[in-house]
Amino acid sequence: MNLEIDTQSNIPAYLQICHQLRDQILQGDIPTGTQLPPERTLASALGVSRSTIVNAYGELKAEGLATGYVGRGTIVETPPTHLGSHPIAWPVHLSALGHRLTQYPHTADLPALRLSGRPDVVSFALGLPDTDLIPPDRLAVAWQAIVERFGPTAINMCPPQGLPAVREAIARRMERRGTTVAPEHIIVVNGSQHGLDLLLRLLVEPGDTILSEVPTYFGALRCFQTWGARIIGVPVDERGMDVARVESLLARYHPKFIYTVPTYQNPTGATMSLERRQRLLALAQQYQVPIVEDDPFSDLYFDDPPPPPIKALDRHGHVLYLSTFSKSLAPGLRVGWLAAARPIVQHAALLNQITELQPNTIGQHLVVEFARRGWLEDQIVQARAAYKERCAAMDATLKRRRAPGLRWTSPTGGMFLWLHLPEAITARELLEESARQGAIFLPGDLMHLSDGHSNTCRLNFSIPDPPAIERGITAMMTALKKLLDRPDETGRTRAMTDTIV
Amino acid sequence: MNLEIDTQSNIPAYLQICHQLRDQILQGDIPTGTQLPPERTLASALGVSRSTIVNAYGELKAEGLATGYVGRGTIVETPPTHLGSHPIAWPVHLSALGHRLTQYPHTADLPALRLSGRPDVVSFALGLPDTDLIPPDRLAVAWQAIVERFGPTAINMCPPQGLPAVREAIARRMERRGTTVAPEHIIVVNGSQHGLDLLLRLLVEPGDTILSEVPTYFGALRCFQTWGARIIGVPVDERGMDVARVESLLARYHPKFIYTVPTYQNPTGATMSLERRQRLLALAQQYQVPIVEDDPFSDLYFDDPPPPPIKALDRHGHVLYLSTFSKSLAPGLRVGWLAAARPIVQHAALLNQITELQPNTIGQHLVVEFARRGWLEDQIVQARAAYKERCAAMDATLKRRRAPGLRWTSPTGGMFLWLHLPEAITARELLEESARQGAIFLPGDLMHLSDGHSNTCRLNFSIPDPPAIERGITAMMTALKKLLDRPDETGRTRAMTDTIV
Repeated sequence: MNLEIDTQSNIPAYLQICHQLRDQILQGDIPTGTQLPPERTLASALGVSRSTIVNAYGELKAEGLATGYVGRGTIVETPPTHLGSHPIAWPVHLSALGHRLTQYPHTADLPALRLSGRPDVVSFALGLPDTDLIPPDRLAVAWQAIVERFGPTAINMCPPQGLPAVREAIARRMERRGTTVAPEHIIVVNGSQHGLDLLLRLLVEPGDTILSEVPTYFGALRCFQTWGARIIGVPVDERGMDVARVESLLARYHPKFIYTVPTYQNPTGATMSLERRQRLLALAQQYQVPIVEDDPFSDLYFDDPPPPPIKALDRHGHVLYLSTFSKSLAPGLRVGWLAAARPIVQHAALLNQITELQPNTIGQHLVVEFARRGWLEDQIVQARAAYKERCAAMDATLKRRRAPGLRWTSPTGGMFLWLHLPEAITARELLEESARQGAIFLPGDLMHLSDGHSNTCRLNFSIPDPPAIERGITAMMTALKKLLDRPDETGRTRAMTDTIV
Repeated sequence: MNLEIDTQSNIPAYLQICHQLRDQILQGDIPTGTQLPPERTLASALGVSRSTIVNAYGELKAEGLATGYVGRGTIVETPPTHLGSHPIAWPVHLSALGHRLTQYPHTADLPALRLSGRPDVVSFALGLPDTDLIPPDRLAVAWQAIVERFGPTAINMCPPQGLPAVREAIARRMERRGTTVAPEHIIVVNGSQHGLDLLLRLLVEPGDTILSEVPTYFGALRCFQTWGARIIGVPVDERGMDVARVESLLARYHPKFIYTVPTYQNPTGATMSLERRQRLLALAQQYQVPIVEDDPFSDLYFDDPPPPPIKALDRHGHVLYLSTFSKSLAPGLRVGWLAAARPIVQHAALLNQITELQPNTIGQHLVVEFARRGWLEDQIVQARAAYKERCAAMDATLKRRRAPGLRWTSPTGGMFLWLHLPEAITARELLEESARQGAIFLPGDLMHLSDGHSNTCRLNFSIPDPPAIERGITAMMTALKKLLDRPDETGRTRAMTDTIV
């Protein structure tokens, strides 16, 4: 086995390794059944990171040229080549965007998260509403009414901008948030993630810069990074984005837009103060830079409503406002929205038509019917009370089981609490041990741009009920104490971290 | 008013004109209430096309700096500028993709199509199933059963690759088409249009080449063009894509993939012979170029089933197969699928997760329930009989009302008949006159890459019933005869065409 990496090449190192291994396997130089070197060994021999080798082996496996399981090594397979034709070497055919897809950390890379759904494991890892709060008969009654009124039209096409009735329901929802927007300025999207993707395509070229709160929603980061955008981070404190730092960044980087989750931020739970909202909007106006305001949580306050959305203050269309029913009602509906200036709505509708034709009609009808019957508001009122109680249970259990060096936020709404671990412990090693004890969550490094933020955790409190929260936090704290108590051998700590990269 | 166009500039001419007009309006050089020159007049004064001026005025209107209605001219508005801040000049902020969105013809540009849905107008313009064939009580019963079985889970999240149950139902559907595909090789997408968009992003860079049948599905052309792909056309005859021409094109252009709708092609209704399917696959294997097989219609045969999908012949994963329940059941479900090699399915699932999180859960549950109860197959069997009868009615009426120089195809399945008009008549002028007589359809130039294919029409027969078809075709033929009978004044013909550009 003979491998060389050309550091001058445009081809990523993992692909170079994959190609060379493939050639040698197909030419019979590496026979079937050969055990390839362990990832770490090959990585240090070639002077690359372990994840480079993991990716190279992964491509070989995808092509059917190797198999491998954790702990058993990677074994060369008989090439699936017969009849004189070869399978396509897909990695070679991927676009730059296709390659970027696997270059960033994803939740799918965390084996511990696969325990989600097991009855003996409490999950703090999701960011969804508790749909068990919805009386199932309401779902049946609402759909029955829709079918009676619309017949098969209920599953037929709708305009690319969305059903007029749902855009009116959305306008009324925004009115409750203190924001007046005409239905013509609203486009229905398949959740706000889809709205983010439409805005990226409309406004950003690969290589362009985006200014974003960091830490922030990891789904937004992955979407920006995969599109090829350069992200400049702005820190977040308990009053939200540190707006004082924004002006110099605008002047220096000329970003295509500013991304913010100003209310009950994902992942920190922080809410941007009214003063900062006003200041950020003034900067956007002065520098003529749009603000993408991602606002999935603002209905979910515990006691007092949050400050109005930045969109409510916007007089000249600088704010591109995203929201969704995925957090207030249910994520499987795929009904979210973008409220924006007409040219953006028109372009987004055209792009939506070209790429997906239209949003799904059924989810829109269900939203309208729930809104019309007052059940949407019911749902939100119930969720506020339930999540407040669950957040309090989480806070109380953390206090009761507290470990030295631990600190966490006190959210006033939303779905997330943000936990800082003692410096010596990484969230990924805690996740591994915690999964063994019966609780999972998301490590905060997913929500950052670079390494070095490894001791934070995002804990969701909207799904588990108070007893489950108490059980899960207790499990996490047991795991944490176990890690704190272990002998201080650097070697051993590294090994544990490595197994979950 | 002083306008200059820099032909060396990267900025499109329409934007240059828009920017200059905007500056002059904002600076007060062009006062509120001014009537801007008619589009044609300004176009010839500046030596640009009329559509350049239409676009420039369109941007001004979008920015609130002008209003205009057909026949009343374009009037300068008071700038919506106050409190010392300006609205964002959105066109300046659009990406290259955003600009390309409006550079190609769209159905939205055809005012006659807005008559769709009027009771006195027969529409041959759509490409959808007749959802009135679905008994509405089945929709209610199916959903009731889903809610009873799954409770609120029915509207909760699903994996980015789609529900396992729907992927199994899809695998069984493909089995009926003679194609064995494992559920792990299937990803659920929001209709096959969405599948096309995912494949474009994964495999194609702006500037790359795609080989495509031409004429072809206009939604695919718009998707490819907007993404920035270069499309090389391969002609279609009554046995489908002219595969004999493909080899030299593969050698010359190294396309990223070959796009084909081999069965009951949109728009011609042609079906690719088995021999051509085999030959095309052999070329794809030889040149290692993927085939994107778009197969929405193959269940909808009138008498004999069509040849098997190319995917059925594919042993090495060269075929990326797209299909959908939008044509066999209902388009508002947004449930389609991509069946492909694992690396592509894995990358598509990751891209789907990053851009939309997941397909909608409700539509998937409905598909599974309809399939489980045998109602999906019922629906397809009914549609075959209905569409066969409607296609025959269209053919018979065309024969009875036939105008000189008219010819059309004889589809054996699907939803479309392809009509060639006498050379002297363009489909767009026929559409205008035909709309006045009470029938609309799609002009074939939308389905071509360049001008000069202006005398073809795509006629849908799946939605109107036989009496409506007879009425609509009679209206079209009345319109055609009126155009054929008119005095041969070139000026007059051009003027009529221009009003619908």
